[in-house]
Amino acid sequence: MSTPSPTTETFSWPVRVYWEDTDAGGIVFYANYLKFFERSRTEWLRVRGISQQTLKEATGGMFVVGEAQLRFLKSARLDDELLVTTSLLDAGRASMTIHQQALLSTPAGTLLLCEATIRAGWVDASTLKPARIPPHILNTLL
Amino acid sequence: MSTPSPTTETFSWPVRVYWEDTDAGGIVFYANYLKFFERSRTEWLRVRGISQQTLKEATGGMFVVGEAQLRFLKSARLDDELLVTTSLLDAGRASMTIHQQALLSTPAGTLLLCEATIRAGWVDASTLKPARIPPHILNTLL
Amino acid sequence: MSTPSPTTETFSWPVRVYWEDTDAGGIVFYANYLKFFERSRTEWLRVRGISQQTLKEATGGMFVVGEAQLRFLKSARLDDELLVTTSLLDAGRASMTIHQQALLSTPAGTLLLCEATIRAGWVDASTLKPARIPPHILNTLL
Amino acid sequence: MSTPSPTTETFSWPVRVYWEDTDAGGIVFYANYLKFFERSRTEWLRVRGISQQTLKEATGGMFVVGEAQLRFLKSARLDDELLVTTSLLDAGRASMTIHQQALLSTPAGTLLLCEATIRAGWVDASTLKPARIPPHILNTLL
Repeated sequence: MSTPSPTTETFSWPVRVYWEDTDAGGIVFYANYLKFFERSRTEWLRVRGISQQTLKEATGGMFVVGEAQLRFLKSARLDDELLVTTSLLDAGRASMTIHQQALLSTPAGTLLLCEATIRAGWVDASTLKPARIPPHILNTLL
Repeated sequence: MSTPSPTTETFSWPVRVYWEDTDAGGIVFYANYLKFFERSRTEWLRVRGISQQTLKEATGGMFVVGEAQLRFLKSARLDDELLVTTSLLDAGRASMTIHQQALLSTPAGTLLLCEATIRAGWVDASTLKPARIPPHILNTLL
Repeated sequence: MSTPSPTTETFSWPVRVYWEDTDAGGIVFYANYLKFFERSRTEWLRVRGISQQTLKEATGGMFVVGEAQLRFLKSARLDDELLVTTSLLDAGRASMTIHQQALLSTPAGTLLLCEATIRAGWVDASTLKPARIPPHILNTLL
Repeated sequence: MSTPSPTTETFSWPVRVYWEDTDAGGIVFYANYLKFFERSRTEWLRVRGISQQTLKEATGGMFVVGEAQLRFLKSARLDDELLVTTSLLDAGRASMTIHQQALLSTPAGTLLLCEATIRAGWVDASTLKPARIPPHILNTLL
C-alpha cells in the first residue's frame, strides 16, 4: 500500500472511542475501524449534499465496498478522540477508490493508527448487481 | 422482575464469547447480551419452522422488540461458553412476551449472568405499524 | 416505567445513525440504543470532568450497568440525527439511577423513539465486586 | 491477492447470519466479516489447544492484526449459514499470515462471499509492543 496522491483535498471527521468500540485487549477492536471509516465516508458524501438514504430512495442504488486494504499501526483506547480522513483517489463509471486514515493527536505529534484503501462500487439496491454511478453523483464526487 | 412461570418448555442455545463481544473492562459489553438474546429467540423460532427472512417475504411482517427489562448479575468473559435460554411467557394477537437467561456453567454450578423479559410486537415491515400476528405463526408459538 | 422527576437538568448528546447501526429491517437494531445511551452517559460524565479511562487508572473502579428497563416506541432510520438525553434520578453510595431518552426532531415535532431507566453500580475493575463510589465522584454527580 | 497455497489443511467454522450482522441494505455489514474471520481464527486456535484468554494470562501476550486485505464478492443475508475458513500461509518469529474465506452453500454450488489475507503479530498485552511468539505456540501452529 504505497502512499497515494489524493486527487482532492482530505476530509476529516472526529470519532470518539467509546466502551462499545473497545475489546478485552483494552484497545479498539480491529473491525471497528471499518465502522469509523464508513462514518467518515458518509459525512464526506453528506458535505457534498449526498444523503445515502435519500439516494437509495431516489435512484434505487447504493455504494457497497468491494475491496479494502488495511494497515493497523497503533491502537486507539477508550476516550481517545480520533480524526478519520477520507480522500478520493479515483472515480470511474462504476466504482470509486478512497484513501482513509485514523489519526490520533498526542502531545508528541499526530499518530497514524490505521490506514485503508477502499474501493466502493455502485450496485442496484434490490439485485445487488453492479451498475453505473448516476452521473450527477459522479460529478459531485470529482 | 419476579420469576416467571413459563408456559412452555425452555429452549437453550449455546453462545461463545469472542473478542468482538468484550470491552476494555475485560467483560462482555452490556448491549451485547441483547444480541445473544436475539440469537436465541431466532433459533427458538427456527426449531418451530419459522425463518424470519422467509416470514418477512411471505407475510410482509416481522417482530420488533417493544419492551425489555434486563438484570445484569455477573459478567461473562472472553472464551466463556454461555447457554442462552428462551421461553414463552405469553402470546396475544399482536405481541408475545418472552423470558430469557444467559447462563454460565462453572465447576461450582450454573451462574445466572443476565436475565431479560422481552415483549416483541408484530409490525408491518414497510410501515412499522403494529399488526396482528399471522394465525399460523401464533399457533406455532403456543 | 412511570415518568421520572429528574433531580438534575437533562443532558443531551447528538447521535447520528450510520449503516453500522441499522439492520435488515431498515431500522436501528434494538441493542444499539444501549450503545447510544452509553455514549450519552459517557459525555454527561465528561462534562462533569470525569474521564472513565482516567478514573479506572486512578481509582481501580468503574461503573457497570446492573439493570435496564427499555421501551422502544418508534424506529430510527439511516441518516437520522438523534438527541440522546441523560438525567440523574438518584445516586447512592454504590450505584446511581439514570433516565435516558432517544429523541428525533421532525417537522411535526419531537418524537420519543426509545426510553430507558438504567441503574449503574460501582465495581472494583479487577474483581468486579460492588464497591462504594469514590466520594469525589459521587459529589460531582449530585 | 493471488490465490495462496496454504501450508496446512483448511479449518472451517459455521457462522449463522443474525439481525445484528445485517444493515439497512439488507445484507451483512462489511465490517462484520472481520468478526466472522476472527471467530474462525479463534476456533482454529482452540482446536490446537490454544485459548487466547488463558494464553494472555499465562504469557502476557496476544495476537493483534497488523494487516488485512479484503475482497467482498457476494453479499450474505439474514439467516444465511456461512462456512468461514482459516488456513495458515506462513508463520515467523513475530507474526503469522492467514488466508480466510466466507463461503455460502447454495443449490447451485458454493459461493465465495468474502476473502481475506490477514497478518497477525504477537504483542506484549500491556505495552502493545511487538514481541516473539512463544515457541510452544509457534510449534502448535506449524
